[in-house]
Amino acid sequence: MKSRAAVAFGPGEPLKIVEIDVEAPKAGEVLVKILYTSVCHTDAYTLSGADPEGVFPAVLGHEGGGVVVSVGEGVTSVKAGDHVIPLYTPECGKCKFCLSGKTNLCGAIRETQGKGLMPDGTTRFSYNGEPIYHYMGTSTFSEYTVVSEFSLALVENKDVPLNKVALLGCGVTTGIGAVHNTAKVEEGAVAAVFGLGAIGLAAIQGLVQAKASRIIAIDMNEDKFELAKKMGATDFLNPSKFDKPIQEVIVEMTDGGVDYSFECIGNVDVMRSALECCHKGWGESIIIGVAAGGKVIQTRPFQLVTGRVWKGSAFGGVKGRTELPGMIEDFMNGKIDLDSFITHNLNFTDINEAFDLLHKGESIRTMLTYGE
Amino acid sequence: MKSRAAVAFGPGEPLKIVEIDVEAPKAGEVLVKILYTSVCHTDAYTLSGADPEGVFPAVLGHEGGGVVVSVGEGVTSVKAGDHVIPLYTPECGKCKFCLSGKTNLCGAIRETQGKGLMPDGTTRFSYNGEPIYHYMGTSTFSEYTVVSEFSLALVENKDVPLNKVALLGCGVTTGIGAVHNTAKVEEGAVAAVFGLGAIGLAAIQGLVQAKASRIIAIDMNEDKFELAKKMGATDFLNPSKFDKPIQEVIVEMTDGGVDYSFECIGNVDVMRSALECCHKGWGESIIIGVAAGGKVIQTRPFQLVTGRVWKGSAFGGVKGRTELPGMIEDFMNGKIDLDSFITHNLNFTDINEAFDLLHKGESIRTMLTYGE
Repeated sequence: MKSRAAVAFGPGEPLKIVEIDVEAPKAGEVLVKILYTSVCHTDAYTLSGADPEGVFPAVLGHEGGGVVVSVGEGVTSVKAGDHVIPLYTPECGKCKFCLSGKTNLCGAIRETQGKGLMPDGTTRFSYNGEPIYHYMGTSTFSEYTVVSEFSLALVENKDVPLNKVALLGCGVTTGIGAVHNTAKVEEGAVAAVFGLGAIGLAAIQGLVQAKASRIIAIDMNEDKFELAKKMGATDFLNPSKFDKPIQEVIVEMTDGGVDYSFECIGNVDVMRSALECCHKGWGESIIIGVAAGGKVIQTRPFQLVTGRVWKGSAFGGVKGRTELPGMIEDFMNGKIDLDSFITHNLNFTDINEAFDLLHKGESIRTMLTYGE
Repeated sequence: MKSRAAVAFGPGEPLKIVEIDVEAPKAGEVLVKILYTSVCHTDAYTLSGADPEGVFPAVLGHEGGGVVVSVGEGVTSVKAGDHVIPLYTPECGKCKFCLSGKTNLCGAIRETQGKGLMPDGTTRFSYNGEPIYHYMGTSTFSEYTVVSEFSLALVENKDVPLNKVALLGCGVTTGIGAVHNTAKVEEGAVAAVFGLGAIGLAAIQGLVQAKASRIIAIDMNEDKFELAKKMGATDFLNPSKFDKPIQEVIVEMTDGGVDYSFECIGNVDVMRSALECCHKGWGESIIIGVAAGGKVIQTRPFQLVTGRVWKGSAFGGVKGRTELPGMIEDFMNGKIDLDSFITHNLNFTDINEAFDLLHKGESIRTMLTYGE
């Protein structure tokens, strides 16, 4: 079938809206009509060409919501007409990782997904007869996309607005999940959040849910402080306003450091600050941001020997098919604020403008509507 | 009073056995007659001059056992005649750290201890009228030493051989404690131990206690494998025998990596290998070795984002005054093997030979006897 898609033909080039061909889903696969998609920094990172695993031409996009059109052989967990959220972290429920009880990093389709291919090693997308790569197992920048059954969370209640819960496909779930699943923040904890994009703001929401006593929000762009405050941050720091490292500032203002810190940027220097602002003896720092390829984090081992813990989180440690239904319920019950993240609404065809807004730091999320 | 002591007069110089003056214990302090002491790599590190916090002249030594001679004002937890083990990680029981329930890093006397001073900012040692610094709050290389009450674990049963349990003052407790307190290793786990000195061998003992299913012992010196095997290691690797990084070798032989790894050397490159040999999704690496000043650890943040955890451990996370009695009991009941660590016995006056044996990798521990 034919599908409108915003194709990344090459690194650094704007996306081009073209009509591509989409093949029918094979065994274990599902054809989804995407209704809404947003744009995340990871899409921008891959589009820039800096991502060493980036392949072109590709259909990017991994935060979306849509409706199942048809299913391939053997698919039983969803059927035509179901509302779904694509998951870049799949959940097969039966691999070593899914069965471990210790991680959400399903291994079932990891290898092909990382190469922009479907599990059988081919693509379902083509343009003028040439294959186009998939992306993160989701490719929500095509109106019709094919994904593995393992990569779909079901939205059972059809009254749930897909143009909101699409955000649970990445940033919001990542931030909230990192607080609960990775850090396991307890009531009364003191926390620092570095970077006030969607993930950082979501981490703040998670910290409020966990009843943290103090939430220090850190960003160079002070325009972000208002929304951080609305979500529940209690302290606001702009590192460029201090003549000493921000970790020292935080250690002083917290009598020794924070209990938990979250790096939500992807900057390896900030990752070091985030670790070193933690309290000796027990402070834990969680890396959520995705750093550019080849970059390394560093610190003196003494920081760890004296009790700090360095962790990371992917998709907030959330098992999407199992846990997203609960988060959707939290949203419907007012326990998760998604509306505040959506600073802009645009038509899908204006997708390059959504990237511009992201780069300029003017948007948190732009929700794109495919329309008719 | 007068005391025989092995004084480190300057960096890189052999210790000199001289007669120093030891002042009476002040409030909160205890005078201990040391009967036995061993030599640890940390003593050698400070003596070499590489330790940025090292001060001279000083009485080094932190693995020992002795008898209380007299106590200063207000001391209630020990009395003259008590058998004790000095603790370089004190336990006051009432500071923010001790009360946190999350760490053994007592803060009560940390600042002065790090400067080679008693809590009141002065020293109890002098030679020809000039002050001599303390070391790690213990200074077991003097026959008579003064330590804080917080720095003494009581050995209640006087039948316990102090020339064995002296080892619980550092390396053995560190290795065993890191397995149980820091890593919390569970039955069936697969583990790697880098470095087969006293700490690494003790970690192997801890892993056997925790019922690890596979214990991979790694060292460049294959002479160490025999003792590692005796203590319970199941696999033995010499990294110099492979033409690829040892972490790749371990990941391959364990179908994805180990559940826990322990760095027991103090080499920042090995620390990276130890992290990267951990299993994606859940593997935890514990840094126990003390790296040289200024050295940094590094890795790609992706290692953490994909679920590996980087931790450290000091004194195995053990609260000495509370937990050493239980470990002493474990030794008396045959659950901890201390005898195998003591490869050499010498008279205290041969202390420089004990350092030589350590440097040459010929000894695990040399137990020095003060004698009469």
